[in-house]
Order: sequence, then structure tokens, then C-alpha cells
Amino acid sequence: MDEFDLIRRFFVRNGVPGVLAASGVHAGAILGPGDDCALLAATTTAAARFAVTTDLLVDGVHFFSDVDPRSLGHKALAVNLSDLAAMGARPVAYLLALALPRPDIEWLEAFASGLHALADRYEIELVGGDTTRGPLAIAITALGEVDPAAALRRDRARPGDDIWVSGYLGAAAFAVRERLRGHPLPAMHAALTRLEKPVPQVELGLELAKLSAQGFVHAAIDLSDGLAGDLSHILARSGAVIMGTSVGAVLWAEALPSHECLSGLVPEDRHDLMLSGGDDYELLLTAPTTARGVLERLGGLHRIGVLDAGPEMRLQDGSGGERVLPNRAYQHFRSESDRL
Amino acid sequence: MDEFDLIRRFFVRNGVPGVLAASGVHAGAILGPGDDCALLAATTTAAARFAVTTDLLVDGVHFFSDVDPRSLGHKALAVNLSDLAAMGARPVAYLLALALPRPDIEWLEAFASGLHALADRYEIELVGGDTTRGPLAIAITALGEVDPAAALRRDRARPGDDIWVSGYLGAAAFAVRERLRGHPLPAMHAALTRLEKPVPQVELGLELAKLSAQGFVHAAIDLSDGLAGDLSHILARSGAVIMGTSVGAVLWAEALPSHECLSGLVPEDRHDLMLSGGDDYELLLTAPTTARGVLERLGGLHRIGVLDAGPEMRLQDGSGGERVLPNRAYQHFRSESDRL
Repeated sequence: MDEFDLIRRFFVRNGVPGVLAASGVHAGAILGPGDDCALLAATTTAAARFAVTTDLLVDGVHFFSDVDPRSLGHKALAVNLSDLAAMGARPVAYLLALALPRPDIEWLEAFASGLHALADRYEIELVGGDTTRGPLAIAITALGEVDPAAALRRDRARPGDDIWVSGYLGAAAFAVRERLRGHPLPAMHAALTRLEKPVPQVELGLELAKLSAQGFVHAAIDLSDGLAGDLSHILARSGAVIMGTSVGAVLWAEALPSHECLSGLVPEDRHDLMLSGGDDYELLLTAPTTARGVLERLGGLHRIGVLDAGPEMRLQDGSGGERVLPNRAYQHFRSESDRL
Repeated sequence: MDEFDLIRRFFVRNGVPGVLAASGVHAGAILGPGDDCALLAATTTAAARFAVTTDLLVDGVHFFSDVDPRSLGHKALAVNLSDLAAMGARPVAYLLALALPRPDIEWLEAFASGLHALADRYEIELVGGDTTRGPLAIAITALGEVDPAAALRRDRARPGDDIWVSGYLGAAAFAVRERLRGHPLPAMHAALTRLEKPVPQVELGLELAKLSAQGFVHAAIDLSDGLAGDLSHILARSGAVIMGTSVGAVLWAEALPSHECLSGLVPEDRHDLMLSGGDDYELLLTAPTTARGVLERLGGLHRIGVLDAGPEMRLQDGSGGERVLPNRAYQHFRSESDRL
């Protein structure tokens, strides 16, 4: 079996490649896989533009080598859809670049099924890609549509904004920690599911984009590297917009929404997993105080702090005590043992 | 230095990220690197659509481990621009996913300089990406604009078409072969330059797209896997368009334009390097006989055969002898020693 057979057999669906547009469902793709490039058209509104993002997952860095390939297929696409969600973009299509040590049929079938199941949920299709022999690595590029006036950017946060986060945090980081400590969680454990099958907040991103167009959301990011690190990106980008200004944050420790998996842990432990653990794929946003009503009505959002003139990022406990949080996101290069 | 510093230091230019549009040059990018996604708009014509492609280069498979990083930066982008050229698309922007064993400053500076020098030639900018620790691998996604009615597709070739190819072939494959035989070429050897610094045929692709819109070009592909394998993709895709039909080809051995580096070789050797060597990044196209005049006036194209009702692909020598060519492109997975 050569690489082209691989692509066709596992990743191309709907019969003959290149006829996606004929189905009517995937109207974004005029020409799908099988040619030198895919052709895409924005279709939702005249003002829509393409949002594009790429994420690379490497064996032993972003996932354990024994990960279920079906989960890996899901996650490789999910982390990219999460970036689209953080922009408020509607997913349109994706491309896959895959390096594999050898063409393993069973592995590919499972990987593709995880990928396709998630793609089906958003009615998007693989429109191109590249497969090669090499150490296992997966680079997915996802494309979405968004009106630039509604896009959820990182650089529009302002002092005085509320800080909100969706969902419950820390479960994925807990699963990684337990594994590294030699206490792997059982297969169906909720924390492991959060690590291996994260749910991108696409629908929430679309709702927030509508509110952004009305001035009710200022900035947003998805949580991939831990709350503190990801918030620091918003602060850095928003502070840099006007030279000489800065944006800081106060987070309320007791308002941080920890996942129920963390209920047996002491508070410091829970906070650490939420703030610097990563892999949550929830959305973090900042919004003016006038947005409280509309954001509460959306449901699932927690107000966890406020922005100030910074530049520090501080964690405040229930008794008014504060500590400054290190303003750094997770660093892949810091050391071999940092993550997995 | 963490991964975010890496991105900023080596790959983001023009000062603050996200202000590409302000320069006026890169009007395709509304929002560049530094956010969850880049935002892109098609700008050339109302009918323009995005062409998108991704290529993955892996250490030891697509390049020798001791390759000059500046050349590698050039080539990683060039192979993607070659796919845009093969579609007749104008390059707009690109994304980079890079896995590196460690953040090596000298290596990154050289790699980025090769990347940027080529990007500058087409006035395109890196609009997003991802860097991580891992075995050296480079996945670039390139986006371009093309009118779908002008796009150079693979599936429109017809029996009776002439087969044309740009430039001179076989030099890159010759460089690989000499290296594998233990006779590496000197640094400035023309064949090594063809291997390490291929020139994507972007301008030619744009000219051919204009002719395609007028019916003067039927199908095109770029030569990455060797003439025989790449032509077989056109035959397969074009034959599959109407069930039960097929498209075949006759190539004239003496008309194949071999690179001057191959002049000392016996004909069989030259033909083999051109037909199955790969890495040429020239354009192969099929066109009706009525296009001969306009294609000759473009310059740099060689007419090398004709399409017939197939399904075979045959090589014809000067005395009328023929042999059937194996209908397979280069196979990355066939064996460890296949390529490098």
C-alpha cells in the first residue's frame, strides 16, 4: 500500500474525491482532496472571511505513546476546532499532514474514525493533506468563516473588564499528573475523557461572536496551556496595542470552576491544576460589566475575576490574600519531562 | 526561551504581529500571527477563491539530516508554493507547524532566513503556526487565490491532448542518487541546488491559469514524485471523471528535457532519473493541440508526448520501440531506503 492509497482508503469519503460541493452540505469546499490544492469559498455572508489555524501534535509531547488512536484522531481535530471557536468562527474544512512510522491498518482505521466522528458533528470535510513515513506527528490545519467585525480577538481586552470562563477546569491536567506519578486513571474515568476527548466550544464561540459584534465581548482565547498562561496572552496582546499601556488581572481563587474530579484535592492543588495544567479547551473571555446579563443567560459561564491596569496577574484568596502568578504559558521546550 | 518567544523572534516580522493589513502589501491577511487564528480575505477579484494545500517534510525522509537549514526553510515553503502554482493560484499567506528537538538559535535563524527570502519574493507572510519539541518535522500550509473557472485541475485531461513540461528534469534526483552512492556533490553543484533550492513555478502557473480559462490548458500537476508517477495522477483522476473511460499516455523518450547535469549519463539512466526521480517542482500539463502556438510563445515549455484512450502509460524511443511504465508515484512507505 502506498501513501496515496492510504489517503484514499482512510481519509477520503463521499466516493470520488473532489465532488464535495455536489452534496450541498459542504458548500465551503468547491474542490476537495485529490488535486494539488483544495478550493474553498466563503458562503455564509458577504462579510465573512476565512479564519485559519494549525496545530501540531507530537508523540510523547502532546500525547502518551499508548493513546487510543481513535481518541487521538478526535483530539488532533478538536484542538484546531477549539482555535476556531476562540475566534468565533464557523468550521468550514480541514487539512491533515500525518507522519507515521509505518502504515498500520488497524491504527489508521481507528484514528480516521475518531477524526471523522468529530468532523461529522460540525459537517466539515477533510479537503487535503499529506502522509509520509516518519516519527508519529499530526499537523491539522482548520479553516472557518467569521465576520471580522465579530471575530473574538485577543487584543481587545480593557482594564475594568470582567473575566469569564466556560465549563470546569483541571480534569485533563489531573489525568496527566496521575499518569506521570504512576497512578494511571481507569479507562472510563471522567478526567481521562477530558484529556483524550476534549469538546471544542464551537457553538459557544459562535454565540460569543454575535455578542462581540454588539460590543458585549472584548477578547477571548481557548484554554490549551493553562488558565494563567492563556490569560497572559490576552494581557500581553491587549497591553501592546497602545504603546506604554498595560493590562493586568485579578483572579478570584474561590470562583475558579474546578472539575468534580478534583474535589478530593486540597485547594492549592486544585488551583495549580486549573491555572497551569492545560488541555481544558474551554473558552476564556473578557467583557464589559454591561454584558453580565447576556453572558449569564448564555449559561455555562463563570465570572472569575477582573482586569486592571496591570501589568501583573494576581490570584486572590477568600480572605483577601494575594499572590502574583508567573506570567508564562506552558513551555514545550523547557524540559523533556515538563508535560508527558 | 519558550516556544512563544521562538515564534516571535524568528518568524514574526513587521513589528507587532497582527498589523499586516496596515502595510497594504499583504492585503490578504486581515489579522496575522498572535491570535487563535489568522483572518484572510480574498482580494484580487470577486470570483477569486482560496486554494489551500499542506506538505509535511520529515528528517531523513524528505531531506538529509545535515541539510543546510537555510535551504530547508526555502524548500519547505517552495514545495507548497509549487502546489499553488500547479493550481494556477496566486500565493496569499502561509502557516508553519514546526517540531524541533531543541530550540537551536543558529539553526532557527538560518531556517527562518531561507523561509523569509522566498516569502518575500511572492510578498506573502507567515500568518500563523505552532512550534513544539519533537523529531524535526515541518508542515507548511499555503493559501492562494484563484478563480475556480481558471484553476489548473488534475481531472480535465482528455485523449488527444498534448503533454507539456516546464524546465529541465532529473537534476535533483541525480543529487540524491550520488549522495546515496557515497559520492556527494560539491556544495555549489547545480544538481544539489536543484534539490535543495527548487524554484516553484508560480508565475508560469498564473499564466497557465489565464490560458485554462480560455480552454487552452486542460490539466496540470507539479512534479514532486517523478514525471511518471505525477502523470499517472492526472490519468487516474481524469479517467475517473466519467465511469468506464480511461486516459493513457505516450511519452517520447527523446523529447524529455533532461537537465544538463545528466549529460554524461547513458539514456536509460537519464530517463529513469526524469521519470521516477522526483523533486523537480516543474509543471506538467496537458493541452489541446490548438494551444501549441500560445504555449510555445510562453517559452520554457517542452512538448513530450500525447494522451490517448489508455489506460497505459508508455515510453516510446526514437526507433518506435515502446515499454509500459509502471503506473505508480513515489511511495514513501515502500521501504526505509526508498528515498534518502
